[in-house]
Parts: sequence; structure tokens; C-alpha cells
Amino acid sequence: MAKQVRKLNVAMIGYGFMGRAHSNAFIQVGHFFDLPHDLKLKVMCGRKRSAVEAMASQWGWEEAQTDWQSVVTRKDIDVVDICAPNHLHAQIAIAAAEAGKIVLCEKPLAMNVVEAQAMANAAHSVPNLVWFNYRRVPAIALAKELIEQGKVGKPYHYRATYLQSWGANPQSPDAWRFRKVEAGSGAMGDLLSHSLDLALMLNGPISELTSLIHTFTPNREVDDAVIALTRFANGSIGTFEATRFAIGCQNRNYFEIHGEKGSIRFNLEDLNRLEVFDRNDATEIQGGHQVLVTGPGHPYTSHFWPPGHIIGYEHTFIATLADFLNCFAKNEAFHPNFDDAVDVQKLLEAVETSAQKGTWTKVLGS
Amino acid sequence: MAKQVRKLNVAMIGYGFMGRAHSNAFIQVGHFFDLPHDLKLKVMCGRKRSAVEAMASQWGWEEAQTDWQSVVTRKDIDVVDICAPNHLHAQIAIAAAEAGKIVLCEKPLAMNVVEAQAMANAAHSVPNLVWFNYRRVPAIALAKELIEQGKVGKPYHYRATYLQSWGANPQSPDAWRFRKVEAGSGAMGDLLSHSLDLALMLNGPISELTSLIHTFTPNREVDDAVIALTRFANGSIGTFEATRFAIGCQNRNYFEIHGEKGSIRFNLEDLNRLEVFDRNDATEIQGGHQVLVTGPGHPYTSHFWPPGHIIGYEHTFIATLADFLNCFAKNEAFHPNFDDAVDVQKLLEAVETSAQKGTWTKVLGS
Amino acid sequence: MAKQVRKLNVAMIGYGFMGRAHSNAFIQVGHFFDLPHDLKLKVMCGRKRSAVEAMASQWGWEEAQTDWQSVVTRKDIDVVDICAPNHLHAQIAIAAAEAGKIVLCEKPLAMNVVEAQAMANAAHSVPNLVWFNYRRVPAIALAKELIEQGKVGKPYHYRATYLQSWGANPQSPDAWRFRKVEAGSGAMGDLLSHSLDLALMLNGPISELTSLIHTFTPNREVDDAVIALTRFANGSIGTFEATRFAIGCQNRNYFEIHGEKGSIRFNLEDLNRLEVFDRNDATEIQGGHQVLVTGPGHPYTSHFWPPGHIIGYEHTFIATLADFLNCFAKNEAFHPNFDDAVDVQKLLEAVETSAQKGTWTKVLGS
Amino acid sequence: MAKQVRKLNVAMIGYGFMGRAHSNAFIQVGHFFDLPHDLKLKVMCGRKRSAVEAMASQWGWEEAQTDWQSVVTRKDIDVVDICAPNHLHAQIAIAAAEAGKIVLCEKPLAMNVVEAQAMANAAHSVPNLVWFNYRRVPAIALAKELIEQGKVGKPYHYRATYLQSWGANPQSPDAWRFRKVEAGSGAMGDLLSHSLDLALMLNGPISELTSLIHTFTPNREVDDAVIALTRFANGSIGTFEATRFAIGCQNRNYFEIHGEKGSIRFNLEDLNRLEVFDRNDATEIQGGHQVLVTGPGHPYTSHFWPPGHIIGYEHTFIATLADFLNCFAKNEAFHPNFDDAVDVQKLLEAVETSAQKGTWTKVLGS
Repeated sequence: MAKQVRKLNVAMIGYGFMGRAHSNAFIQVGHFFDLPHDLKLKVMCGRKRSAVEAMASQWGWEEAQTDWQSVVTRKDIDVVDICAPNHLHAQIAIAAAEAGKIVLCEKPLAMNVVEAQAMANAAHSVPNLVWFNYRRVPAIALAKELIEQGKVGKPYHYRATYLQSWGANPQSPDAWRFRKVEAGSGAMGDLLSHSLDLALMLNGPISELTSLIHTFTPNREVDDAVIALTRFANGSIGTFEATRFAIGCQNRNYFEIHGEKGSIRFNLEDLNRLEVFDRNDATEIQGGHQVLVTGPGHPYTSHFWPPGHIIGYEHTFIATLADFLNCFAKNEAFHPNFDDAVDVQKLLEAVETSAQKGTWTKVLGS
Repeated sequence: MAKQVRKLNVAMIGYGFMGRAHSNAFIQVGHFFDLPHDLKLKVMCGRKRSAVEAMASQWGWEEAQTDWQSVVTRKDIDVVDICAPNHLHAQIAIAAAEAGKIVLCEKPLAMNVVEAQAMANAAHSVPNLVWFNYRRVPAIALAKELIEQGKVGKPYHYRATYLQSWGANPQSPDAWRFRKVEAGSGAMGDLLSHSLDLALMLNGPISELTSLIHTFTPNREVDDAVIALTRFANGSIGTFEATRFAIGCQNRNYFEIHGEKGSIRFNLEDLNRLEVFDRNDATEIQGGHQVLVTGPGHPYTSHFWPPGHIIGYEHTFIATLADFLNCFAKNEAFHPNFDDAVDVQKLLEAVETSAQKGTWTKVLGS
Repeated sequence: MAKQVRKLNVAMIGYGFMGRAHSNAFIQVGHFFDLPHDLKLKVMCGRKRSAVEAMASQWGWEEAQTDWQSVVTRKDIDVVDICAPNHLHAQIAIAAAEAGKIVLCEKPLAMNVVEAQAMANAAHSVPNLVWFNYRRVPAIALAKELIEQGKVGKPYHYRATYLQSWGANPQSPDAWRFRKVEAGSGAMGDLLSHSLDLALMLNGPISELTSLIHTFTPNREVDDAVIALTRFANGSIGTFEATRFAIGCQNRNYFEIHGEKGSIRFNLEDLNRLEVFDRNDATEIQGGHQVLVTGPGHPYTSHFWPPGHIIGYEHTFIATLADFLNCFAKNEAFHPNFDDAVDVQKLLEAVETSAQKGTWTKVLGS
Repeated sequence: MAKQVRKLNVAMIGYGFMGRAHSNAFIQVGHFFDLPHDLKLKVMCGRKRSAVEAMASQWGWEEAQTDWQSVVTRKDIDVVDICAPNHLHAQIAIAAAEAGKIVLCEKPLAMNVVEAQAMANAAHSVPNLVWFNYRRVPAIALAKELIEQGKVGKPYHYRATYLQSWGANPQSPDAWRFRKVEAGSGAMGDLLSHSLDLALMLNGPISELTSLIHTFTPNREVDDAVIALTRFANGSIGTFEATRFAIGCQNRNYFEIHGEKGSIRFNLEDLNRLEVFDRNDATEIQGGHQVLVTGPGHPYTSHFWPPGHIIGYEHTFIATLADFLNCFAKNEAFHPNFDDAVDVQKLLEAVETSAQKGTWTKVLGS
């Protein structure tokens, strides 16, 4: 009997940088992975007709539309993918979920916990995904595997910095990211949310934290930088720092974990590598292994190129989508989903509360 | 008047690793670049019907065929792209060129200089390209720009090593690469050809050389490793080493250039970076700049992702194809073409001659 | 007229790891620097006669003694250098200062602010030094110069981690460092004090902070790890982390500074290098300069070996001593002195207070 | 019975850069190592009285002299250490050996093989040493241990580059190094000799080679750069490059070894590190270990500072001298001695012959 392949028609709401990254994933996922579904790029939807038409044409979407409300309820749409500005996520996602669509949403999921929880509640009835794409960086997925194998052992320290520098440039083209009403926050939602999601995946829940939020730029509505100290439920302690003012760094999403048996270091600007320290190595050759995570034996890499041939940023979206579709076909739970993103949102809220009050703050529900 | 977009139907002969890399380029080039042509993936052609059908289906080729002779002369084919084993390059390319097709061919172009020259002669009447894709690594293209701007100055040293390790594994899946009749050579055609092409681009002609060719594996038909000392026409001196026995390295295509005013270092395993030493820097901060070549201001990068978001191996094929199509549209010369590949072939032949005779050998035509 | 060289007789109280490092400095400083004084290694003083005699003999001290009280008041002693355990610093230093001796003291200066202030008061009448030796790492001294030249510009972020791992080893030979009565604290006084001293030198006063102090080891009397968030008086924000539980790191005293015009990165495990990012570089070659800080044009390096010949840990003590002696001869102020160390002690106390109360804490006198 | 310590009076002939490095070693060796001898810095001897007196005074030599002939035969001298320009090595060494002195000599040992052999013959009756100090870099000594333990296995490739840049600076203070009559050669004797000595130690004899010698500077008497391809007796193949024209590099004495089971990489500008690739590591964490070679378990390091505290260039001389004195006391063979240096000299001569003839050249006696 032939493999049953169901066709899925996709509508994308949004068409900026993430619109390109997602379009690419929808196109490429079937080339690199054997999928149970065929994806059809049906509708791209955005505010400015001429712009959305140009993008839709370049990336091969069948239609360009400007009214998301009508799109998300169309009978011929199976999947709604949301990469509109943050303040629109909730209404689009809830409408799509209520229409029974599969819902994929960019991060940060929402403007606050209340909104996020409402979205998660709405989405409980449909397959859903939040684009915390860095979980599928092969090196980070390898880190997860090594931790699960006990290579790090009892954890002591978690240290994450997400360093960019474009915030210091007032002429940034990404202007909506500086407006509170659209973006909700600055470095917090944009960068810190990624670091927190990875920390939850790799090191588990955070129980309490204290933080500092800072805006260097006069009159800027959102935060330029945020720092937090945390206690994890597993007994380890952590630091988080996210900033758009780290001159010299472009996209340095970095973390280090030190445990009883080893340590791990990762830097997104070098995304094909993981540094692994293994305390079981013979004493005289102990030192961080510079692992080129392009196979053999590494997560996702066999789907891309032979060992030694590196992948880029966009492959993280492709791998995320492949995992999601495979989970969907097998009726298995996929992560990160809206519930996972609620956990991140709770942490962001605790960060805000702590920064306002100047005290340690318990994390909701932890 | 509207932009005139001509559709180009592509036939690909071959369907292995390079078949995937080229298919990807044909699909992706229009997403990242505004092109004067639309490419249609018309026919994928290979020896084993079931295998070529599977690949064609996965990558969206309209047809799968097994008889290249009939394909390359089809009226509905505009472009013939060759990624069959090396010994077939010449007959396919010549047939395609004689049929007036645009011809793209994998490297090494040919089994020897005679064959390469015949191919170049046949291709003089048609647009043609050789897939020395590494010229379009953004970091390498940046190196070229810096050299042209005089940032390196009078060159003293050129040093290239291309280090892989899979040759030490007798169970390699890429078995045809060990058979002389199909591959022609081992590390020479596979790896050294890349290093030589880059050297010609970056540092100009090589006038003479002395070399050593070595096969570590008993009964292996092709070379496992090759080393050469060279004198360049510009007065600098060079070393080249290509090997499949560099345990610890997977795809370390590395070069360094030292000139009067600066130096440059590149490693393909870190393809988004270039190290640049600038003697004009203030003395106390002189040191190799670790340049993350993802923009702004770097070749090709504005077509891909924002600064700080790295690209992968496959993007070099996309950028190569984009440049080729733009040159074709503007009727401008494209490099590297078959003539450029003849120059590489002459160097490979000089390497063979020198190794056999144990003496310095002048390079033909230099 | 011949240069007048005054002979200085030195007594050292202590003979452990720091006893070796200081002995070496007293012996070597005259070889690498032209000094206004001759140093005579007169007396080494310690608790265990046999041990102190062995050390004194190996390092060429004239006498070995066990009673520091009688030593520090001897007429033939000009300099008292203190590297006994922390809880003895105050009484020795005060006795020596009251006897009119030049006083040099290991860090942390004291067990608390009250003690430190008393020491500083006593020492105001004599030349004094605290061995925050890392100020004289050539790369760090270069960082200071670059900052003073405006190469970093308005500062945004300061980030310091001092990572060691030996605390996880219960059989450490340095057992006194785990006893509160002798050491006063753990990572705080031992490691964080260095990071704070450098931050004060490079980025100025800290106005307030919030912190976390943690001991992983059951029943251990002192802290294994400490983390702090800080606000600097200059408007920048900072993080500090010091730990003896960073598996994989041996002596990673690391800091990064990001300012408007550039950034700087340093790692003590690579002490001959400084990474410098200069926003004034041409855009296409912007990237961290890997500066090998061995000259020419770098602080201290002309006194040691030619450019490219690296120095080790001990040279930081030699350079510190040379500067101190030259300042003494010229009657110029030397830093870091006891007053500087009081500032560090105030910060350590604020860290303790904040950790106990769980709130932000103003720094005394800032 | 007390340990019998014999006093050894040292005379040094020469007082330049190496005079400082050797003086330091004579002074420091007894501080870091328990020695069977006491060294007394008796006489420093050089051509210019004022200069040698200044140096002798700064480094604590008892006397300054200008007539080496009378010094090397003095009854009160036990050890003659030679760091005069290269052309004087032979006559001084032979005179000292004939006078029954222990003879230590800087590298390159001699101006040619004949001279070197005469020196070795004369020195057979006395303890002797050649200052190929890099053998005692802890990281290199560790490399040797790992090779002997079989961690590299059957060797395939040896690749050495010694890159400096000061040759491009016509105002170099080290002018004698450019004069053929005093230096004998340029990069060959100064740099390549080090690389060859290490290769002989780590990878055994070289059987044949082909080479290129180049002088970039008009009218310069000695070579600026030299390159060689080699075949080792063990079946591996090698490349060597030494140059004073590698702009961007100050003292990059670098080598890589690839064998069946692993590989090793070293760079003198990072002398406290060794990169070790171990094919026995679990596949998913294979990657070069960045080993900080400061102990525990590393050669020499326990004599210096605790783990994580790096050493500098000069410690290689100290460790060399310590090993020599211990071998002398135990009547054991020490390496590298004059015979070892003759082997290097034969290789240098083969390099010259090959470069002149343009052919492969067998190495004498190999």
C-alpha cells in the first residue's frame, strides 16, 4: 500500500524577515526530509498590498492577500503561520485555532501572560507550534542529547548571553521592534525569550529570579537590555543577559552549562560547533572538544549535507517544521508548543516584576 | 516596458551529492536573487531509474530519464548541468555544447588537459560555467575584494591546505571516487583543484612547481594526498596540500595569504568568517580581525539573511548560479568558465608530471 | 653623579603559593626593570619551621623565621610583604605600618570593611600596595589605555566571570581556603575581589548591586559561587560571576566591555591576548582584533621578551613591583593601594548584604 | 647522609637576546627544580665591554670579560654556554670541549655539516646540550608523550610552519641575523632548524626532500623564506615552511600531525595549549580537545604554577636546563645534544642542495 500523503495548504500572516525564513522552510522541508505531507504555499497575507505581492511572487505563494481575518477562516487553508508583529499574534492565533487550523506562531508568543494563556487555551484543540527555532540547531539538539545521557551530570551553572548591537543604531530598518504597542518589549521578547526557552529545554524550570531592565536610548519605548539572576529548580544557578547594545556582536546567542561531569558551550555565530568538556577524558587531554556538528551521528545533519559541510541559520526552521509535521502525522506531542511559550512568558513577566520591585520574584506556576 | 523574463528549462545529468546541491541552487536562486530568468527543473537524468526517479520526485524535477544522449539534444532543454562522474564530463559537455545548450559542469572539468581543452573549445560558442563554487563563499569573495583594493599589497606567501579524513575509511559510500577510470584522480581532482582555482583567482598564475603524490592505501587506484611547492608569476611563493588522510579534519579547505600590507586567513569549516590582518591598524591593536562575513557590506550577504545570521555550504552554489545568470543576461563574461578550468587542469597535469619526474615543472601556457 | 641606589631589605610573612610568586617577583624585578632600589631577600617567615626553611633556602632568602611579630619591627627590615592567610593580614599590616615599614599585602586585603579601613588608616603614613596583580597583565593594561584613549567610548555593558573548578574537588590541597575563620570567604574574596578590582580600574565605581551567594558543597563554610548584577556610576550595567564550580575552567578570569565605539574581551587563560573591536574600522573588515600583546607598543612588554614571545602568570607580579618601586622613588601615588582595596572590600560587603536581604544594595561611599 | 651538591661555575659567551634568556634560566632553574648542582653565574663575556658590563650587572654575573679564549680555559669555569653569533659557535665550543668544560650551545649549532660534525666530535667527551628549547614547551613534551602512548598511531602527515614577519622591516635591530658571514643563513638556521628538530623528535628521520629557498629583499645575503616537502622514514609525508615575511605573524611556530588514531596541533603564540584530536572519543563528541597544558598531569608544569596559571617563553629554557643537569647528575644521555644538532644540520644542508639543484635530495646518513 502506498504511503498516504495528505496535502496541507498553508497561509502565512506576515511577510518580513520571518516571512522569508518561514517561506523558505515550507519550500525546503520536503527536499531534505521525507514527509507525510505535501505543503502548498497557498496564501501570503500582509498589510501593504504591493509589498506582500512582491514577496509572494518571489517565494512562490499562490495568492497575496491583505485581510487576515478572511484568510484564517478559509476552508481551503489547513495551516496558519503567524509572523506578523507581536501585538497581532493573539487575535490571529485564536481566530485560526477556533477555525480549527493548525497554528504556527512566531515568538514571543504574546504581549503578556494573560494573552499567552488565552492563546494556549484556544490552541489546545489544534496542533500548534511556536517558532523557538534554535532548539533545532543541530549543536543545541546535541547538547540536549548529551545532557540526557548524563554527560554533564548534576548541573551547577547556567549562563546565557544574547548579544546584538543594532539597537545602538537609531536608523534601524526594523523600526516596529522599537514601538511598545507593536513589539511589547525590546531585547526581552526578541532575545531573552530565546535564551529562556533554551534554558527551560536544557536545564528545566526556573523557580525565582532577580533582574534589571535598562533602556540606554532616550525616549525609546522598549528595553535595550535586560539581565537576570536565577535559581533553577534543579539546584543550579544562572545568569541571563540580552542586549541590543553589545557593540561588536551581531547575533551572539551564547550559553554555557557547567555540571559535575562536564560542560557545554555554544555560540550562534558559530552555529555548526559545540564545545564539550568531558571530565571522563584522560586527565592529560582534558579540554573543550571543538565538535563540528555536521555529522556523523549528530541530530538532523544526515538530512542536510555530508559531514564537514556546514548549514546556515535557515536550516533551524526547516528542522523545526520537519519535526512538527512528523509529530503531527504520528499524533505525538510536539515541543515547543503554545504551552511551552506560556512558560517563557511567565518568566518574562517575572523579569518585569522583579525589575520594577527590585526584589527576587517567584516564577508563576513553578 | 516590463522586465523581459526568459524561461530556461534545465536538464541535470547526475543525481548524487552534487545533484542535490545543484537542484537546491536551481530552486533557491530565484528566492534570494532577482533574476532575469525563470528556471524550470525539467529533467533529471541518471543511470539507475529507481534512484533518479526518487531524487527527481523529492526535488521537484518534472521528469526522470536515464539516457543522457537523448536529453542533451532535446529542443525543450536550454541548460545542461553536469554532475555525473568525472569521466563522463567531456562527452556530455561536448554533446550539449554542440547542441547549443548552456553548459554547466562540475569540477574537476575533465580527466586531463587534452579533454579539458576539447571541452573548452566546444563550449566557446555557448555560455558555460564550472562549479568551482567556493569562489562565491562570501568570505572568499571578500578576500578577493580586499586584495583588489590593495589591502594585502605585494604578495609574499600563499599557503593552501585542503584537509579531509574520509579516505582512511575503506567503507566510504563514495566508492566511485576511489576508481581511477571514473574519478581520474583522488585528492588531486577532488580537493586540490578547488585550492588551485582559488589561488588563481586570488593570487594569479603559477609559473612552476614541484610536487609529491602519495597513496597510503594499498591497491587504491587514486592518490590519497598531494603536496606541491609553487612559484607564482607575481613573485610570491606557495604551498599546496590536499589530502583525504588528515584525521581530525572533515572539510578544512584553508588558505592564508601574506603580503606587504596585510594577510588573510580562511577555513571552510568556518565559512562565515574571514581573518584579516591590516598593517595599517594602529600598532597597539594590530591583530587578525575576526570578520563575521554576514554583512553589512559583504559580497552576496544582503541576498540572504540579516547580519549575524550565517549561511551554509549550499549558498555558494546559489550565489554562483545567480552571478552566472546575471552575466548571461548582460552578455558579460562569467568566471570560472571552462577556460578557467583548463588552467586548473594544466596545473594538475604539471603536478602529476613533477611528481613522476621528481623535478620542478613549468606550467603549460603560463 | 652616579644614580643613587638605596638597598631595601625585605621580609615576607607567608610561604605558600603566593610566597613563591612574590619571591620570584623580588628576585626578577631587577633583571627586567632598571630600578632605583636593590632588593635584598632578608627574611622569610612562616608557621612551620621546616617548611619555611625549605622554601627560604630554595628561593634564596637569607633567614627563615617563625615569629612574625619580631620580624616586622626589626630595624634591618624596610619592606614587609604579607601573603599569610587572610585573617592575619590586618594585624601584620598594622604592626608593620606602625613600625614604619613599606607594606605590601595579598588580596583580599581584609576579612571585612572595618578591618580593611583600619589597615588603610594605619598604612596612610607608609608606601603600600595590594597585590591585585592582574592590573599589570599587559593585555589588561592595554585595555586601560584603550579606554582612556576613548576607543571604547561611552560604556554600555561590563561582564566579568571568574571561573575555576577546583572547589568541586573535596581533596584540594588548599584546604585553608575552605575555612571561614582563615579565609573569610570563598570565591568572593579569592576570585570576585579580582574581578571587582579590575572593574573599578576599567569602568569606575559601582553604585548599587543585587547578588546571590551559593555553596554547593554540604557543610562547606565558605561560598562556592557568587553572582551579582550591578549599576555603574557611569551609567553602564554589569554582571559578575565568580565560582569554583565551573567544571572545564581552571583559571578563566574573563571580562568583556561594550561601549559606543568598541568592545574589549580578555581571558586570563590566554593572558597574552586581547580582543579589541573597533567600530572605526572599515565596515567590511570590522571584527574583533586578536591582539598578541607582546609588543611593540604594549605596556610592560619591552621589559620582557621580543614581540611574539609570550610571558606567564608570574610576570604580572614583577610588573606590579616595578611600578610600585618606581612610584616610591618618584614619590608618586601607586595603585592599587590599601585605599583601593577598601573600595573592593565595600563592594564585597554590599554583595553579602544584598544576598542576605535579597534586595538591591547601595555601595558604601559610592 | 646529606645530598651532595656540586657547585658549577658558568661562563656565558654572548649577551644579546639569548644571553638574557640563558641568564634567566641559570638563575631560575634552582627555584623551580630541586637540583643536584648549584650554578654560579661567574663570567659573562662579550665583544663590547660597556655593553657586557651592563648586562652582567643587571643579571648578576660576577665578572664581565671580552676575551672568550681566555675565559673558556679558566680553571674556575665548569660550564661554557655559547650564545654568540653563529659563526663563532664552532671555535668556542671546540675550545671549551677540549678544555674539558661542559658545553651548551645555541642553535643552529654550526654554519654547516662539516663544522657541526667537528663540534660534535670534540664534544663527545663532555656533557653537551644544544638549545633547541622548544622541545621542553610543556605542550610539545605532552605531544611527544601522546605519540609514544600511541594516541596518534601510524602517522600520515606532518606539517610545520614557522612564521615571523620582522624580515620585512629593514630597520630590524637584529642586523647580524641578515649577514651571511655571521648568521650563515636566515630563516633556515633561525627558524627552520627549530621546526626540523621538533619533527625529528616527534616523527623521526626524514629520508628525502625537495625545497625552495627565497630571498624577497634585494641584496639581502640570507634567505627570507624556505619551504620543503619531505618523506619521513616512517612512511608519512611532510611540509615545512619557515619565513620572516609572514605579515601578521610574530612567532607562529606551528605544527600539525595527523595519524591513524588522532591528530595534534600546536602554535607557539599560544604555547600553553595543545589541540588533540582523539579518534577513540565517542563519535558525537569527536573534535579537537583544547588542552590547557598547565597541569595536572602534564610535563614540567608541577614545577611552575598551579593548573590554570600559564607560563611564558623563558620557562622552556629553564626546563631544558633542569633536564640537562639531572641527566648529568645521573650520568644519563641528554637530548638534544650536539649529535642531534648534526642531524638538523644535515637536513639544512639537504634543503640547500635540493634548492640549488631543483631536485629531490636524499638526506645524509638517513
